[in-house]
Amino acid sequence: MVREELLKEYSKVWAINYASALMGWDSETYMPEGSAKERGEASAILSSLKQSILTSQRFLDLFEKLKESASDDFERALVRVLEHDLKYYLRLPPELIEEMERTTNEAKIAWRNAKKRSDFSLFAPYLEKIVELSREAAERLGYEEHPYDALLDLYEEGLKTSDVERMFDELRSPLKKELQRILDFWPREHPLEETPYPREGMERLNKALLDALGFQWDYMRVDSSAHPFTENIGLYDVRITTWYHPKDFRRSLLATVHEFGHALYERNCDPSLWKTPLCGGVSLGIHESQSRFWENVVGRSRAFADFVAPMVREYLNIETSPHEIFRYFNVVRPSLIRVEADEVTYNFHIMLRFEIEKGLIEGSIEVRELPEVWNSKMEEYLGIRPSNDSEGVLQDIHWSLGAIGYFPTYSIGTIVAAQIKREMERELPLEELIREGNFAPIRDWLKERIHRHGRLYPPRELLRRALGEELNPSAFIEYIRGKYREAP
Amino acid sequence: MVREELLKEYSKVWAINYASALMGWDSETYMPEGSAKERGEASAILSSLKQSILTSQRFLDLFEKLKESASDDFERALVRVLEHDLKYYLRLPPELIEEMERTTNEAKIAWRNAKKRSDFSLFAPYLEKIVELSREAAERLGYEEHPYDALLDLYEEGLKTSDVERMFDELRSPLKKELQRILDFWPREHPLEETPYPREGMERLNKALLDALGFQWDYMRVDSSAHPFTENIGLYDVRITTWYHPKDFRRSLLATVHEFGHALYERNCDPSLWKTPLCGGVSLGIHESQSRFWENVVGRSRAFADFVAPMVREYLNIETSPHEIFRYFNVVRPSLIRVEADEVTYNFHIMLRFEIEKGLIEGSIEVRELPEVWNSKMEEYLGIRPSNDSEGVLQDIHWSLGAIGYFPTYSIGTIVAAQIKREMERELPLEELIREGNFAPIRDWLKERIHRHGRLYPPRELLRRALGEELNPSAFIEYIRGKYREAP
Repeated sequence: MVREELLKEYSKVWAINYASALMGWDSETYMPEGSAKERGEASAILSSLKQSILTSQRFLDLFEKLKESASDDFERALVRVLEHDLKYYLRLPPELIEEMERTTNEAKIAWRNAKKRSDFSLFAPYLEKIVELSREAAERLGYEEHPYDALLDLYEEGLKTSDVERMFDELRSPLKKELQRILDFWPREHPLEETPYPREGMERLNKALLDALGFQWDYMRVDSSAHPFTENIGLYDVRITTWYHPKDFRRSLLATVHEFGHALYERNCDPSLWKTPLCGGVSLGIHESQSRFWENVVGRSRAFADFVAPMVREYLNIETSPHEIFRYFNVVRPSLIRVEADEVTYNFHIMLRFEIEKGLIEGSIEVRELPEVWNSKMEEYLGIRPSNDSEGVLQDIHWSLGAIGYFPTYSIGTIVAAQIKREMERELPLEELIREGNFAPIRDWLKERIHRHGRLYPPRELLRRALGEELNPSAFIEYIRGKYREAP
Repeated sequence: MVREELLKEYSKVWAINYASALMGWDSETYMPEGSAKERGEASAILSSLKQSILTSQRFLDLFEKLKESASDDFERALVRVLEHDLKYYLRLPPELIEEMERTTNEAKIAWRNAKKRSDFSLFAPYLEKIVELSREAAERLGYEEHPYDALLDLYEEGLKTSDVERMFDELRSPLKKELQRILDFWPREHPLEETPYPREGMERLNKALLDALGFQWDYMRVDSSAHPFTENIGLYDVRITTWYHPKDFRRSLLATVHEFGHALYERNCDPSLWKTPLCGGVSLGIHESQSRFWENVVGRSRAFADFVAPMVREYLNIETSPHEIFRYFNVVRPSLIRVEADEVTYNFHIMLRFEIEKGLIEGSIEVRELPEVWNSKMEEYLGIRPSNDSEGVLQDIHWSLGAIGYFPTYSIGTIVAAQIKREMERELPLEELIREGNFAPIRDWLKERIHRHGRLYPPRELLRRALGEELNPSAFIEYIRGKYREAP
C-alpha cells in the first residue's frame, strides 16, 4: 500500500531527524568545544542527505500517489503536512538555501561582534543580505496577500500577516491601558531578584519540582545550558535544559517549568503517530502556548506560590512567604530586554519586532534605519529608550540566523495559554489542583485536547477542536485584568 | 576526479557513522532508560541507510574506477580498506545479516538470563544458532586456509588462524613457566583491593591524571558508565568513560589510563585523512596495543607508581607509598574472570577462548560440551576451576553479540604493547619520563610511528614500519621476565 511504502521511506528521514536532534542537544550540553566545526559539517551532510531523500523521485511519486488516494484523516493529514514541509525544498533552489546558510554562518559571527561593540553598522550589511534572501525566498515560496505570509507559514502553518495584525490590533491599546493602570500600584522590583541562592540546592529543587509536575524520568532528562531549551529527540526521548544564574532563582525555576511544558507536549503525542511526519508539536505558536501555560498560568499563579514556597525553604534555605513569592514571580517593569520581560510587557516586545520584520520584507523600512526605528518604538510602547544598540536592536540572535517570521509565534503562545486557562477552568478546579500539587488532571486535559493529536490538524483547526474557538486575544486581556486587579 | 567524487559520496557514510557513534556514546551515558527500543530502531535504520549508500551502483562504480586508476599510497589504501569493509555487505546476503541481528537481539537477553541463573543450557540454543550463522558467514566471506580466518579478518585485517596458533604456541609454555615462577614469591593480594575510596576524590584524581597524560579537553571528554569504553565520534570529538566501584581504586584509575590510550590513537590520526575511510585505528589488535601500552607498560610500572603516589594521597586521602602502589597495581593471581585478570595470567583467558571458537567453527567442539571444555581448560591453564557457568563459560557478553573472532585481538594488543616498549626504549628514557610525568615525548613517538597513519597501512605493514618487525610474542615474554625478576 502507498501509505506503508511512503512511511517506510519516510522512516529514513525520521532516523536522520532523530540523530540530528541528539547532535543538537549534545552540542549545547556535553560536546567538547573544539569539535564545533566538525559537528557543523556532519549536521550539514545529514541535512542534505535528508533533503535528497525527501525530494527523490521515489518519494515524490509515493507522495503524489497518496495525494490522489488519501482516504482518511490520517492520510489527508500526511499529505497536508508533507506538502507543507516539502514546499521549502521544492520551491527554493539549492543555491538559495546554500547562500542563506553561508550568509547566516557569517552573520552569526558578525552579530556577536556587533553586539559586543554595541555597533549595529557592523551587522547591518549581513542583515541586508538576509532580508534580500528572505524576500527572494518569500517570492519563490508563494503567498496570497503579503510576502511576509510566506515566511510566517514556515513557523506557523497557515498564519498570515493580516492575522498577526488583527491579533496585535486587538491587543495593543487595551494592553497599553492595562500596563499604565498596573504600573500605578504593582511591585516593580523585589529583593529576591538580588538574592544569591545555592546552585546545588536549586538543582535539587528543579528535580523535586519536575517530579511533582509529572516529569517522565524514564523518557526525559534535564541538564543545564547557556540558554534553556527543549530537544525532542524522539517520542521516547525528550530532553530539557535550564540555567543557573548566581542570584534571582525564579529565572531557573520558571525556565524549568517553561521547558517542562514543551517537553510534555512532545512526549504526549499519540504513539500511533510515532515515526511519521505527524508526530510532535504542530507549530511554534501552539508549542509556545504549552510552555507559557505552565510558566505563566501555572507557575506565576498565587496557587503555585503556595505550592512551591515549602520547596524554596527546604532546598534554597530562603525564608519567605507564598505572598512574597507571588510578588517576586510577578514583578511588572518595562524593560529593554525581551527575554527578561514580564507577562504584561512581553507582547510589546513582539509587536515591535513584527512591525520591523513586516516593514523590512515589504520594503517600507530600510535596514540602516533600524536602530532609530527600534528605539522610537520602544519609547512608544514601553516608555523607555535603549542607550545603545546592544540593549536595543542587537539584543536577539534570531535575525542573524535568518529567522524572520518567527517572533509572532511567541505572542500566539501567550494568548493561547490564556485561552486554555479559560477553557480548562470550565471543567477543572485549576487553582485548587495547583495549590495541592495535583497536576495529573491538568496534564490529562492538555493531552486529551491538544498533545495527542500531534500534527493531525492544522493549528487553527486544532484550536477550534480543543478550545471551541480560534486565536482570541481578548482571553489574554481578560486574564491580565483578572490577575492584576488589585495590589498583591 | 574519481577520488574526489568517491570521497564526496563517502562523506555521507562518514556523517552517518558520526551520528551513530554519538548515539552509541549517549546510550551508555545519558540516554533515558525508557528510550532504548526507539534508539535501537533509529540505529538500525541509519545502519541500513549506510549500507544502501555503500552498495549503491553509483558508489560501486566509483570504487571500481578508483581501483583501476589508483596511483598513489593514499588511493591504494582507499581501495584496500573499502574492499575490506565492502566485503561484509557485498558477500553476505541481507537475509543473513538480518537473521544474525534477530538472533543476537534474542541471544543477548537469553545470555543475561542464563548468566543470572548460572545455567548455560538457557543460552546454548542461541549460541548454536550464532555458530551456525557464523559458519555460513565464513563460507560466504571466503578464506584460504581455515573458515575461522574469515571471522578474524573482520576485526583484524589479514589475520589468520595459523597466525594466532603460532602466536599462542610461542607464548604458551614460556608463559606458563613464568607464571609458576612468579607465583612463588610475588604478592597475590593487597589490602588496597579492599579499601574504600571517595568517589568524588577519584573523579578529580582521574581528571588530574588525564591532564598530566595530555588529555585534549578541547576535543575529548570523560564520563562514567557501567563498563569503560572509548567512543570515536569524529577526529575532533573522542570520548572515554571510566567506572567507579566502592573499593579497589586501581580499577577506576587503570581503566581511565587504558581508555586514554584508545582515545589518543583516534585523536592523533593525520587531519589529511579526516572524513575518509582511512581515518582512525587500523584494527582492534593495534588499538588494544595502545590502550595496553598505557595501562600496563606505563600504568603498572614502578616509575608510574612513583609518579601517581602523591595524587593518591592528595585526592583519595590514602596514605601509602609508591612501593605499595606498585605491588597493588601488579598483584598476580590466577582468577576466573578475564576482565579482572592481571597481565601475566590474561593471555591464558584468551587462549582458552580462541581454542573454543576455532573448535566451534571447524566443528571439532560442540556447543553443548562448552561448560566442561571451558572448565577443563581453566584448570589446565590456570589451575582453578569455575564452580558454576556464570563465572565460567557465561562470563563474557561477546558471543551473544555474535562477536566470534574478536578475542585474539586482545592478545595481539598485549604483545604489541611490549614490542612498542622495547622499541621505544631504544630511543627514549621511558622510565625517567614516566617518573617525571613528562608524557609528551611518549605521545609524540606513538603519534609519529603509529597514530598518524590511520588505516593507511594494513596492521602487519604498520608494525614493520613502526617497529621494524611483525607480531613478536617473545617481546612479551621478555617484558614479563624483566618486570617480575624478583620480589617487589
